[in-house]
Amino acid sequence: GRLPQGVEWAVHACLVLALLRPDEQLPAQRLAELFDLPPAYLAKVMQDLAVAGVVVSASGRHGGYRLAAAPGELTVGRVVRATGLAEALFVCTEIRGRGPCAATPEQCRTPCAVATVMRRAEMAYLEVLDAVSLADLPVPGGRAAAEQWLTAHVHRVKERS
Amino acid sequence: GRLPQGVEWAVHACLVLALLRPDEQLPAQRLAELFDLPPAYLAKVMQDLAVAGVVVSASGRHGGYRLAAAPGELTVGRVVRATGLAEALFVCTEIRGRGPCAATPEQCRTPCAVATVMRRAEMAYLEVLDAVSLADLPVPGGRAAAEQWLTAHVHRVKERS
Ligand code: FES
Ligand code: FES
Repeated sequence: GRLPQGVEWAVHACLVLALLRPDEQLPAQRLAELFDLPPAYLAKVMQDLAVAGVVVSASGRHGGYRLAAAPGELTVGRVVRATGLAEALFVCTEIRGRGPCAATPEQCRTPCAVATVMRRAEMAYLEVLDAVSLADLPVPGGRAAAEQWLTAHVHRVKERS
Repeated sequence: GRLPQGVEWAVHACLVLALLRPDEQLPAQRLAELFDLPPAYLAKVMQDLAVAGVVVSASGRHGGYRLAAAPGELTVGRVVRATGLAEALFVCTEIRGRGPCAATPEQCRTPCAVATVMRRAEMAYLEVLDAVSLADLPVPGGRAAAEQWLTAHVHRVKERS
């Protein structure tokens, strides 16, 4: 399942990756060290981000994570969606079609009023998050400290695959 | 943990309870039958609603659930909050205070920028849901069918505890 703190981890990780130069990537193990998090759990969150195209993961000796686009082009909304927001917010299992008072197939041709209001709320939620990019947020512990730490731990790549 | 479909079940159940007269209550077992749901899982959702003061549960031979207030006074937002929305949306574990680049206690006196934007989104989400009451939504399978079924299955109480 989805980690409750997955969003927090994902956004904080992306804010650090936003400090990397184009030829740099950060190994998963280092990212876990930076936040003192269990590597296996963080890896799951990062994998979701990779599947959603928010980060790119390069394997091998010089492998690691980097953002898939410039920080100003990646919204918090995209990061949050990647962590499985929709499933966490609301799931419609067409309950209206069950039991002795079930809605008819005809009635079910239009979306359920409950699902409709839930989707409207989800859109309002994402609208706030889509208006904020990774470039709009400060690095919580301070940019200088993070950059210094990164200098000692990033991998530099000669060639981009 | 929280059921992903908890919100759907909770709102649909409340829409049916909204049809009860002041002296009626619906046994938990009947509610599960109405939606053809596993009673134990639905009971968990209804318990959350009771704890949040959205429904009232009376025990005993004539026991059952009813809404804690008039349908027009109970918003969808209240029902959704009751199912553990906040934990599902976002949990801050103060990750900024961890690891080699941790924010200082001084930096942590103000809320984290990540938590702040997440809270703003949550407020926009709830604002939509708080503008809709149970009286604003139709009963998905139709009011007539539900009222007829209820007539045969509600408990009538002489006295209110
Ligand atoms: S049937 Fe799924 S929300 Fe109504
Ligand atoms: S420390 Fe929790 S959101 Fe930033």
